[in-house]
Amino acid sequence: MKKYSLGLDYGTLSARAVLVEVKDGHEAASAVYEYPHGIMDRSLPNGHPIPPLWALQHPEDYLSAIEIIIPRVLEEAGVTAEQIIGIGVDFTACTVMPVKKDGTPLCFVEGYAENPHAYVKLWKHHAAQKYADRINETASRLKERFLELYGGKTSSEWLYAKLLQIFEEDRSLFEKTDYFVEAGDWLIWQLTGTPSRSTCFAGYKALWNDEDGDISVKFLESLSEGFGAAQSKSCSFPIISTGCRAGELNGEFAKRLGLMSGTPVAAAVIDAHACVPAAGVVSPNQMLIIMGTSACHMLLSESGKSVPGICGVVKDGILPGFYGYEAGQSCMGDHFSWYIKNCLPVSYAEMARERGIDLYSLLREKADKLCPGQSGLVALDWFNGNRSVLVNSQLSGLILGMTISTLPEEIYRALVEATAFGTRKIIETFESNGIKITEIYTSGGIPKKDSFIMQIFADILNRPVKVSSSQNGSALGAAIMGTLAAGKENGGYSDVYSAVVAMGSKVEKTYLPDPQNVSIYERLYQEYCILHDYFGKGGNDVMARLAEIKQ
Amino acid sequence: MKKYSLGLDYGTLSARAVLVEVKDGHEAASAVYEYPHGIMDRSLPNGHPIPPLWALQHPEDYLSAIEIIIPRVLEEAGVTAEQIIGIGVDFTACTVMPVKKDGTPLCFVEGYAENPHAYVKLWKHHAAQKYADRINETASRLKERFLELYGGKTSSEWLYAKLLQIFEEDRSLFEKTDYFVEAGDWLIWQLTGTPSRSTCFAGYKALWNDEDGDISVKFLESLSEGFGAAQSKSCSFPIISTGCRAGELNGEFAKRLGLMSGTPVAAAVIDAHACVPAAGVVSPNQMLIIMGTSACHMLLSESGKSVPGICGVVKDGILPGFYGYEAGQSCMGDHFSWYIKNCLPVSYAEMARERGIDLYSLLREKADKLCPGQSGLVALDWFNGNRSVLVNSQLSGLILGMTISTLPEEIYRALVEATAFGTRKIIETFESNGIKITEIYTSGGIPKKDSFIMQIFADILNRPVKVSSSQNGSALGAAIMGTLAAGKENGGYSDVYSAVVAMGSKVEKTYLPDPQNVSIYERLYQEYCILHDYFGKGGNDVMARLAEIKQ
Repeated sequence: MKKYSLGLDYGTLSARAVLVEVKDGHEAASAVYEYPHGIMDRSLPNGHPIPPLWALQHPEDYLSAIEIIIPRVLEEAGVTAEQIIGIGVDFTACTVMPVKKDGTPLCFVEGYAENPHAYVKLWKHHAAQKYADRINETASRLKERFLELYGGKTSSEWLYAKLLQIFEEDRSLFEKTDYFVEAGDWLIWQLTGTPSRSTCFAGYKALWNDEDGDISVKFLESLSEGFGAAQSKSCSFPIISTGCRAGELNGEFAKRLGLMSGTPVAAAVIDAHACVPAAGVVSPNQMLIIMGTSACHMLLSESGKSVPGICGVVKDGILPGFYGYEAGQSCMGDHFSWYIKNCLPVSYAEMARERGIDLYSLLREKADKLCPGQSGLVALDWFNGNRSVLVNSQLSGLILGMTISTLPEEIYRALVEATAFGTRKIIETFESNGIKITEIYTSGGIPKKDSFIMQIFADILNRPVKVSSSQNGSALGAAIMGTLAAGKENGGYSDVYSAVVAMGSKVEKTYLPDPQNVSIYERLYQEYCILHDYFGKGGNDVMARLAEIKQ
Repeated sequence: MKKYSLGLDYGTLSARAVLVEVKDGHEAASAVYEYPHGIMDRSLPNGHPIPPLWALQHPEDYLSAIEIIIPRVLEEAGVTAEQIIGIGVDFTACTVMPVKKDGTPLCFVEGYAENPHAYVKLWKHHAAQKYADRINETASRLKERFLELYGGKTSSEWLYAKLLQIFEEDRSLFEKTDYFVEAGDWLIWQLTGTPSRSTCFAGYKALWNDEDGDISVKFLESLSEGFGAAQSKSCSFPIISTGCRAGELNGEFAKRLGLMSGTPVAAAVIDAHACVPAAGVVSPNQMLIIMGTSACHMLLSESGKSVPGICGVVKDGILPGFYGYEAGQSCMGDHFSWYIKNCLPVSYAEMARERGIDLYSLLREKADKLCPGQSGLVALDWFNGNRSVLVNSQLSGLILGMTISTLPEEIYRALVEATAFGTRKIIETFESNGIKITEIYTSGGIPKKDSFIMQIFADILNRPVKVSSSQNGSALGAAIMGTLAAGKENGGYSDVYSAVVAMGSKVEKTYLPDPQNVSIYERLYQEYCILHDYFGKGGNDVMARLAEIKQ
């Protein structure tokens, strides 16, 4: 009888379940559920308005998802509950919600449905920048040790910036909240009946580290009197390491979902992090870049060092046995989509229609014919701010070098090049801080679909760029975590290396740098760096000032 | 019997004739002729390719034009040849051609039809930048006095940069050329049979000034051995002041055109300059901004001073009795058109179609609803380089502040604002160099048609902006020059003041600054200035380096 692991992948707009064979990682079935409420950034379900820069979700969507996608994959694969040896979950983060003692989301409680603060704050909720600034300034002034682990700056997307926002903007709700829980940990709580915290969320989003533990009440109090209470409200549950068992599926859920009560459930991990084992990355100094609407850069290393501007380094945070580093670019596919939707002329749409191809294929074809440097353009890829290595959400996009002969495909290519320059900046920052990178792996929508973009990345990074064959990377990674939670005794694996070698994806394509392009991109990258430092490191804070005027 | 003056306006793409009543400036008839060869920038008429950045014209078009448009206006107005007391001409400049001793354009001579250098180099021929650089460097090193009159830099569009290009790139053609003549002067030569040079072309484009006369052979030799010959090839004809008679219509032309032999013909003027009297501007410290594809800023003053980055100051150069200052922005309507053609999405085209309005009206309507600063964007208006006050054709456009929420109308508005900031920079440069500006007049296509743009100009300049009612500004100005060439004794005018008061246009609308917008634009202008100086004054020469890589 074949053994399976169930991977649950909670993304930004939908949840996916995959059923994966434990022996070889083969995907037997997959099902997706789009969240009915999606991202709530304009109004609550009852029409109550949401302020600008907010991004909320509805926890109801998370529960509805499993009720639909789990029975569907079981049915599709013709697999029985007994064949499932473990369950793993990955989730976006920091995606945090206020709950009552029993885990009930505050937005389900009477009287709270109209309060935006009662809902889930999605990772891309960007209204807490000023609170992140306060955390960074205070930590820097007090020489807090934790700051080094996050490259010198914490993000407005992370836990304490979001909690400080609630504390300052709705004290009563803050006080009524028993716990603030990562949505991933909350789902595990629902499935197992036992609350816990995954090292992955705690380490990368909640300033926890294995040596010092949680952030001190004293530091939180120095941010605002009374805010020390945030510690017990968010750090009371036991920490469970990545790849370990958080508990077993409780009877009630097992029944509703058609699974076996007692099935081992792994600690949840961040969605991007789950892609690492899925992509077959399991050795030190391999970087995995997940390229989608935004980009995440995951790196395993044997040493833990402070690297300025990275998102974080957490021991055992990505895979057990390694220091896991994370960096990121807030904008990748996102600004390509923005450009295609907002800036392509009617004449191109007509050309595409005449040729019977889509607008994007036409654009890619035209952009692919250009040579590096031919457009005279250079851009900064900060359309969603800059996560690494500047950690500043107030930075914005720039395009330079336009003339009245500039063509749409030239601008598009410049935007693609800018994201590759941004990735190179991250890689160089790691290396200049003593963390070597010997191999580049990629996964996500862009590497699978877009050879035009991938060749530019190989040329600009001046390294071979490998594309992982995994289709549903995060979900496969979650399923691998499920086999570790089960352990060898239950038909799973006892160590991550064996699990990844057996179940991880293979490299399906490698892009090699073209030496001729490399040398021109070398010059353009120097220009990018000058602009990067001028606008990003205090030479001219125009972007922040414009953002302020805009508000 | 009513008296008329004939104004001939030779623009970039077409020539226009107007017949104007001498008494009150009333336009009795108007006719246009589009040049069949237009701007030749890709290939010669026989298919011979033209290198990039070149812009040529065919002198045949200039002659064909008068044969058609002059008889047409006479007929349309029902005016006899006897009623026409004078003829005035305005022309683009520096628009220069090589000719033989008798005035025959070299491109008409056998063996030269395939040589691009044998044709007219249009004002916007931009392939001579490196020769302009050499002129500027050499003049600066030798401390040549003339440099001060042009704000410290001469342009690649001007005479000697274009001639040095011919000298260096086709020595044989340079030597075969008897004279290099401004197209405007050449037309007067054709009409009157006598070659001459107008102070307007000589002063603004050929480094002539009333104190020192023409540029020295010694200086030209210091640019390249043998180039001293350019002086006699371009400076041999007598100088005629703006508003003076260059000669009388010769018999042959009079016959062909149905005019009287001996009709007084005024010295030609630059097209933009002709707009000054046409707009009713005839007092010191009034600035006229002509806003079309590009923008020209004309200013009359009682004192001649060196103003960095202006195009030139010429005594009697615009109107007799004043120092005439000229400054310019290479890109205005040009980059709005670029944006509308290349960057507006299909969804907007559909919206416009549904509402039955054109795309431009829709865009303007949307952009008009935005508040200053709301977009978080700031742009540099250098899509065609920067004429004033940086005088650098290698500068290029910049847009800063984009996020993935940025809308097309926000970018459009930022481009409009950038041109107004550029104008303000010019005004402030005049004033900080002791040349006061008390009134702003505008003429050209944009002021007549676009209240959205004009209100932004008033808000950003923080001054009332007057719109002249003149429809065919340059042509009316040329006709005014015709009445001065005729003089009072022939039914015209003896002084420019009387002529302009009688015939010049009136102010049809005044835009007043909105105090609320003014204060926000004050802050945005500060940002523009920082970027202007950083990218334009050596802080970061990225634009020049990108232009070099592009080549």
